[in-house]
Amino acid sequence: MKIITLLTDFTETDGYVGIMKGVILGLAPAARIVDLSHDMPPQNVLQAALTLGRCAPYFPEGTIHVGVIDPGVGTERRGMAARIGRQYFVGPDNGLCTRLIQDAKEKNEPMEMFSLDTPDYQLPEVSRSFHGRDVFAPAAAHLAAGAELASFGEPITDPVLLEIPEPRPTAKGWEGEVLYADAFGNLTVNIRREQLADAGRVDILIKGRNIPGIRDTFGEGEPGELAAIIDSFGFLSICIVNGSAAERLDASAGEPVAVSIK
Amino acid sequence: MKIITLLTDFTETDGYVGIMKGVILGLAPAARIVDLSHDMPPQNVLQAALTLGRCAPYFPEGTIHVGVIDPGVGTERRGMAARIGRQYFVGPDNGLCTRLIQDAKEKNEPMEMFSLDTPDYQLPEVSRSFHGRDVFAPAAAHLAAGAELASFGEPITDPVLLEIPEPRPTAKGWEGEVLYADAFGNLTVNIRREQLADAGRVDILIKGRNIPGIRDTFGEGEPGELAAIIDSFGFLSICIVNGSAAERLDASAGEPVAVSIK
Amino acid sequence: MKIITLLTDFTETDGYVGIMKGVILGLAPAARIVDLSHDMPPQNVLQAALTLGRCAPYFPEGTIHVGVIDPGVGTERRGMAARIGRQYFVGPDNGLCTRLIQDAKEKNEPMEMFSLDTPDYQLPEVSRSFHGRDVFAPAAAHLAAGAELASFGEPITDPVLLEIPEPRPTAKGWEGEVLYADAFGNLTVNIRREQLADAGRVDILIKGRNIPGIRDTFGEGEPGELAAIIDSFGFLSICIVNGSAAERLDASAGEPVAVSIK
Repeated sequence: MKIITLLTDFTETDGYVGIMKGVILGLAPAARIVDLSHDMPPQNVLQAALTLGRCAPYFPEGTIHVGVIDPGVGTERRGMAARIGRQYFVGPDNGLCTRLIQDAKEKNEPMEMFSLDTPDYQLPEVSRSFHGRDVFAPAAAHLAAGAELASFGEPITDPVLLEIPEPRPTAKGWEGEVLYADAFGNLTVNIRREQLADAGRVDILIKGRNIPGIRDTFGEGEPGELAAIIDSFGFLSICIVNGSAAERLDASAGEPVAVSIK
Repeated sequence: MKIITLLTDFTETDGYVGIMKGVILGLAPAARIVDLSHDMPPQNVLQAALTLGRCAPYFPEGTIHVGVIDPGVGTERRGMAARIGRQYFVGPDNGLCTRLIQDAKEKNEPMEMFSLDTPDYQLPEVSRSFHGRDVFAPAAAHLAAGAELASFGEPITDPVLLEIPEPRPTAKGWEGEVLYADAFGNLTVNIRREQLADAGRVDILIKGRNIPGIRDTFGEGEPGELAAIIDSFGFLSICIVNGSAAERLDASAGEPVAVSIK
Repeated sequence: MKIITLLTDFTETDGYVGIMKGVILGLAPAARIVDLSHDMPPQNVLQAALTLGRCAPYFPEGTIHVGVIDPGVGTERRGMAARIGRQYFVGPDNGLCTRLIQDAKEKNEPMEMFSLDTPDYQLPEVSRSFHGRDVFAPAAAHLAAGAELASFGEPITDPVLLEIPEPRPTAKGWEGEVLYADAFGNLTVNIRREQLADAGRVDILIKGRNIPGIRDTFGEGEPGELAAIIDSFGFLSICIVNGSAAERLDASAGEPVAVSIK
């Protein structure tokens, strides 16, 4: 029994995701399919790479993650099937698995990546605009059904990697930025728990607003109050108790955030 | 084979629901996971309790329902695992299973509830803000995999119960209120079929509008017409043929509804 | 192992879809359930029929497709269970399977259709407004569990068929129309690849805008540019690179599209 996850920007409105599931179940009837999200911002590869990086570690070893946020579909960009540490990835070679690769490198885990060249692992007709259906879903299904990774195509040694913004140390603390706003309007900042570990009192500055200190939990503040916490993934997060910080501050990915440590 | 249902206010945008599924399948690979809804109004425990009460009876005996509408996450509120009549519940002890408890009491079915204290049934690290992933998903998975309910923690004898508004009899009929508006904009009123069973002609008054009589079906009226029916769960429902009564009447949960019986 | 797909206009907000899954799994525990879409425009049977026609061919033989876009629920309209070519359909007899029937006819595949009359294949209580739960989900589950198609009720020989607009040949080329706008805002036109196969240069006229030529792929143009492609289902599609053609042109289903061939 293999798990196949799906991450796309297709929405579930038009049945495109359902079609991918039909293709998968036709080739790998025992596969368990799990939706990660189909509401990624259209063609926002960076946000999808961050989402995949956040989700993948919670899946069992051997899970196959299919990502189809694919602005380059139909152009020269390669498709890839990869083993990255404990997990597999299938999708375009456009940086979607940047976080998975970073994590595997940090942990010194093995990886191997292959181009999706083998027509046997594709639908008989491959369109120019829906590789999720014609290339990636069948590749994941064949992988789940036992195909050897190396049989998919040529080895890839230079996968596309995204530049994920890292915070810079300053005289006072850190200069970071918002990585993304989630559906609650919470703003994830690219500063990690470890980078604030020895800090005494901190002040967080965003859009001219000063947020004093980091709280233990959402539930502590008054409704409507702006607050900073370390989120459940270990990142600094700016939120509003029972509200949307993204909306209130009119802030989104890329917004600068300064942390000063006293 | 155990069924685990999920009910949250997470939306499916950010992958949080997918993460819960990854955790469950890692611990209980054979579990069948079914989404009830992930679009509950944020932190609206009452609406979620009503939704759970409406869905649960249609699932097979032994189904495990996980509810994570959890404004108190990270505070002192308890987590719970419970057998309530024919079904199981896992989630915060904040009233989410009020309807399940009411139903089981009405039918004289047994219940037992336990606090989620046992670290063995939690992820190694428990965050302050994502108990859906760290506490409730693993608890449900262990339950599905055969863990004894009593092994989760201390018995709970005083579960939090929500006050769900009941209609009051009046000289003319009933004074009730809207319980919720569904996605079609149909307004469910807290008056049941049984309470109107012997009524002759009834008039329904909401927001100064009079709706004469109860129809047998949606399909009977003219498009755009305001109508009252008994919905498929046995409640009085105010709707507009091919439209949204919630929008047209600008009405939502709590809106008073008077029924006069002639 | 049988696959059951679900296509509705219920949204997933209120748990109605979850309830259908509970009913199915109670009767056919081994069924694999796949969501096609629950966001069909309310009561738009034509768009749902087109979506089902697009999705079904990608599912394995023997898949059971349940469609519940059902403006006539509770009126005299029949329910039906049908084998149409390689696949099964369960839902109202209102034209939802028009495309499936057209396709099967074109391929000379057999079909048989039956009315949903047998109370044994329905929930004990059948409501007037939620046949998805009370009639169609149980019918699909019984079918998945091995019930004979002919045991559901009387044969249907005159299924309701929708009139799906076909393009008309003109002196210059074709006069067609938009069939639907998908979630990306791409406009699917009812003109097929085969109808343009021998064309040299073509011009596409929609809402007073002229689009010269058909491109090979989305990825070719400049962001924001209006473009025409043959989509991955073989239909002419009008789109905007990284944008919504539906929004930009303020166009939706029914909008005339002229193609002139030079």
